Amino acid sequence: MNLLLSEIRHNPLLWLLVFVPVVFVCQKVAPEAHTLLFLLSVAAIIPLAALLSHATESVAAKTGDAIGGLLNATLGNLTELVIALTALRAGQIMLVKASIAGAIVTNSLFMLGASFFLGGLKHHTQEYNRVGARLHAGLLFLATIALLVPSAISELDATSVSRFTQQLSLGLSILLIAAYALGMLFSLKTHREFFASANVETGSETPWPMGLALTTLAGITVVVALVSEIFVESVQEAALKLGMTQAFVGFIVVGLVGGAAEMASAISGARKNRLDLSVGIALGSASQIALFVAPVLVLLSYFIGPAPMDLQFWPGAVVMVLIASITAALVTNSGRSAWFVGFLVLLVYVIFAMTLYLLPPKTQ
Amino acid sequence: MNLLLSEIRHNPLLWLLVFVPVVFVCQKVAPEAHTLLFLLSVAAIIPLAALLSHATESVAAKTGDAIGGLLNATLGNLTELVIALTALRAGQIMLVKASIAGAIVTNSLFMLGASFFLGGLKHHTQEYNRVGARLHAGLLFLATIALLVPSAISELDATSVSRFTQQLSLGLSILLIAAYALGMLFSLKTHREFFASANVETGSETPWPMGLALTTLAGITVVVALVSEIFVESVQEAALKLGMTQAFVGFIVVGLVGGAAEMASAISGARKNRLDLSVGIALGSASQIALFVAPVLVLLSYFIGPAPMDLQFWPGAVVMVLIASITAALVTNSGRSAWFVGFLVLLVYVIFAMTLYLLPPKTQ
Amino acid sequence: MNLLLSEIRHNPLLWLLVFVPVVFVCQKVAPEAHTLLFLLSVAAIIPLAALLSHATESVAAKTGDAIGGLLNATLGNLTELVIALTALRAGQIMLVKASIAGAIVTNSLFMLGASFFLGGLKHHTQEYNRVGARLHAGLLFLATIALLVPSAISELDATSVSRFTQQLSLGLSILLIAAYALGMLFSLKTHREFFASANVETGSETPWPMGLALTTLAGITVVVALVSEIFVESVQEAALKLGMTQAFVGFIVVGLVGGAAEMASAISGARKNRLDLSVGIALGSASQIALFVAPVLVLLSYFIGPAPMDLQFWPGAVVMVLIASITAALVTNSGRSAWFVGFLVLLVYVIFAMTLYLLPPKTQ
Repeated sequence: MNLLLSEIRHNPLLWLLVFVPVVFVCQKVAPEAHTLLFLLSVAAIIPLAALLSHATESVAAKTGDAIGGLLNATLGNLTELVIALTALRAGQIMLVKASIAGAIVTNSLFMLGASFFLGGLKHHTQEYNRVGARLHAGLLFLATIALLVPSAISELDATSVSRFTQQLSLGLSILLIAAYALGMLFSLKTHREFFASANVETGSETPWPMGLALTTLAGITVVVALVSEIFVESVQEAALKLGMTQAFVGFIVVGLVGGAAEMASAISGARKNRLDLSVGIALGSASQIALFVAPVLVLLSYFIGPAPMDLQFWPGAVVMVLIASITAALVTNSGRSAWFVGFLVLLVYVIFAMTLYLLPPKTQ
Repeated sequence: MNLLLSEIRHNPLLWLLVFVPVVFVCQKVAPEAHTLLFLLSVAAIIPLAALLSHATESVAAKTGDAIGGLLNATLGNLTELVIALTALRAGQIMLVKASIAGAIVTNSLFMLGASFFLGGLKHHTQEYNRVGARLHAGLLFLATIALLVPSAISELDATSVSRFTQQLSLGLSILLIAAYALGMLFSLKTHREFFASANVETGSETPWPMGLALTTLAGITVVVALVSEIFVESVQEAALKLGMTQAFVGFIVVGLVGGAAEMASAISGARKNRLDLSVGIALGSASQIALFVAPVLVLLSYFIGPAPMDLQFWPGAVVMVLIASITAALVTNSGRSAWFVGFLVLLVYVIFAMTLYLLPPKTQ
Repeated sequence: MNLLLSEIRHNPLLWLLVFVPVVFVCQKVAPEAHTLLFLLSVAAIIPLAALLSHATESVAAKTGDAIGGLLNATLGNLTELVIALTALRAGQIMLVKASIAGAIVTNSLFMLGASFFLGGLKHHTQEYNRVGARLHAGLLFLATIALLVPSAISELDATSVSRFTQQLSLGLSILLIAAYALGMLFSLKTHREFFASANVETGSETPWPMGLALTTLAGITVVVALVSEIFVESVQEAALKLGMTQAFVGFIVVGLVGGAAEMASAISGARKNRLDLSVGIALGSASQIALFVAPVLVLLSYFIGPAPMDLQFWPGAVVMVLIASITAALVTNSGRSAWFVGFLVLLVYVIFAMTLYLLPPKTQ
């Protein structure tokens, strides 16, 4: 417990934990203050995501390489998964889809761009392992293609036969999860040397003892789920008042909030001139959402939630995710970075955000 | 003749030749058994394609570098060409277009992915010549762009004025064939050192004497044409019964059947840790279809067949071909491969196939 | 003045200056000879663009690195800017948009392809700095994405709400100009060593004295503006008579005419086996149009011209610009070129031109 407190004392991000009780109190007192509840729940999820990420890494560090890597890979996007599950149960399919697409884009554009930009402000030119970065970018590209192509094709061929979409999404989800399992075999077993640097990440902070880590993991997950519920309940009304479309909230807000913890790691790596680490976190996390989070949500939607979810994304989302993964491939191609490259990647993200913010809400 | 027989004895693929007489007998006996005829004709074309490919290489080996290379390049996709011509004569334009697009995708995704995957199962990491692979991928990208852009543009601009499409396709075909001729000048004359490794392919098997090779070439082409006729006649009814759309048959079945021989070479190269060879065959063959087979079919459609064919592909095909060529460019970019990269490339192909299989047939 | 005359004597391009007085006389004598006026104005703009370019470089050479680079970067596409402004004032928004998209495509396909092709005819294989070329291509890709994504997204989401487009274009223009300013900080100040080779360009010709350069700069700009007016007035009628759509004129004709001077530099660099220079000019100039010329035109459209312009491009233009920037990225990836690569890049450009030429004019 002391360890937990000392962690909180040293990490300013965790001071936001104060919003966790505040949001619960506020919900009791003023359940109709949607905008306030929305903002508070966003503020509360950020430090919870950071704790969750640290707990996962601590468990991983204790259990050894293979199982640890597995845990890290599976729970790395736990926050996004819990938020999406809550939205799924509430039947907000559009929010879930937007948050899947948004998490991929946020990881591969905002996280990568911010790392390049902030790293580049400190270091004149940053070199990193070209071959590793290209492998990561190649995997991300293939993962997003696999996720998106059916949307693209059925969209373009103007077929909206629901039964077709449903079948295709189910088949696709099973293929993606199989690919994810093989990907773990690849990165943790047969070719772990390619992914070596990404594991160093755990070493940079003091791991917690097993008991604390497991308790934190379980406890925080429950708290995240509870806060997510408030978030999902309030988001629609709040978005309306703040002039934000649901696409913007799912894509940008959930993406940034859910990925806050990894962003902190990626940027801190870049400031220490270890861009390999940043690229690995950003692109690895984005791949994981395409190969694991998205298909898991489809499969679970058959058990929880009012209606099954498919993997049919709206055309704008398809374009943004594709551009994000091609951009990631092109900018990591040279193995060299400078602040302006990061700035331009951030610019693409900002333009996406602006477009989504200004886009008039659709009836669909 | 003894040589031919010994070849057949040593190559298990050629045992499928037994289906050639079977398919002809079956057509006489049961001309209405469409599904059976379809399956038999597919089984018969595979070994014929392999023989055709060996005969072409033998002629090429005897005639020396320049003319040999020319022959190899022109007749390398003879099977695809003959099948497409038969379909063209029968007025099955949709099947022809699907088989053009499918052959490009099958070569650049399935053949490349299978080489990487099966090569990677044997060898931990495979390195190959990055610069050569990039040149091949660049040429393939430019060839597919050239083939597809008109479809993309007129599709997006929602113009389906038939006269425009017809003129554009004619002009385009002439440009593509000119590019193909210059490409041969480039790869066989001015810059043959870049393409050196691909020629070694012929050396790996014992070439036949000229007489046998030429007779086989002529004879087998006729047999392929006859079997193709049965294939084209039966495909529509069979597809209906097997629950396959015409797009699926053209794209996936014809693509896999027509390319079987090259696939065998590419994969065997990968198993011998000669990925340069595999990449050269896969991407070279895909480029050839875009630059040579497709425009030749357009030009010939004015002389044979009930109606001239244009190069207007349906949007889903455009997307799949574009993705295939960008994927080929990205995965060959690092000059390094491992089994999971191959698996993911195959996955994209399988997802394409699944999408086409599930896609409800269109009225168009 | 003697210097100017000797310059004209030695540069055959400048002999076209004779068309400048001819076009003015012709306009007085036969103001209704639209086709003639169109052709004469095109012939007159080419040498003016060359003079403008030399004058800019001379001022830049005298004022020293920082201000000189700034001038060079800002006035490098002055001809395109003046033509577009004239069209804007005449309310020909479609022509302006086509010329923006066309200038990007012409620079990154035609200029790059012609350099590779003509350089490759003289030198067997040309090597150039891969890292620099990738940085340029990455910047161009990001710049075009930034410019295009809003069109792509709102197009695909089938929203043509005019207020949304207007707001988005304004916001985007401000972001792009900010990016452009930071890009100059980057290339002229913090990381000028990456862009070093591009500055050598000015050294290759004798700079003029300051007075002559400034006078020429001011004088020629006025003349270009006057000739542009004749060009814009005659283009619509002439295009109709010559069977060209407005899209073709803006995209291809204005693009080639406005970029003639840079093309001469890029190709001459390639013939001297200095492809770094050619790649820098071609891709740098294309980026500049996306990041500077396009947003400046949007902002100025609020002050001059009958109606504000937005950055909504028609879908065909979006596809062509995207393909152009991806093509530039792929072909410069290997750092090695040969004539056939250049030929294929030119082929893509020719196919674009052919498509636009044959495309039936739209009512929109």
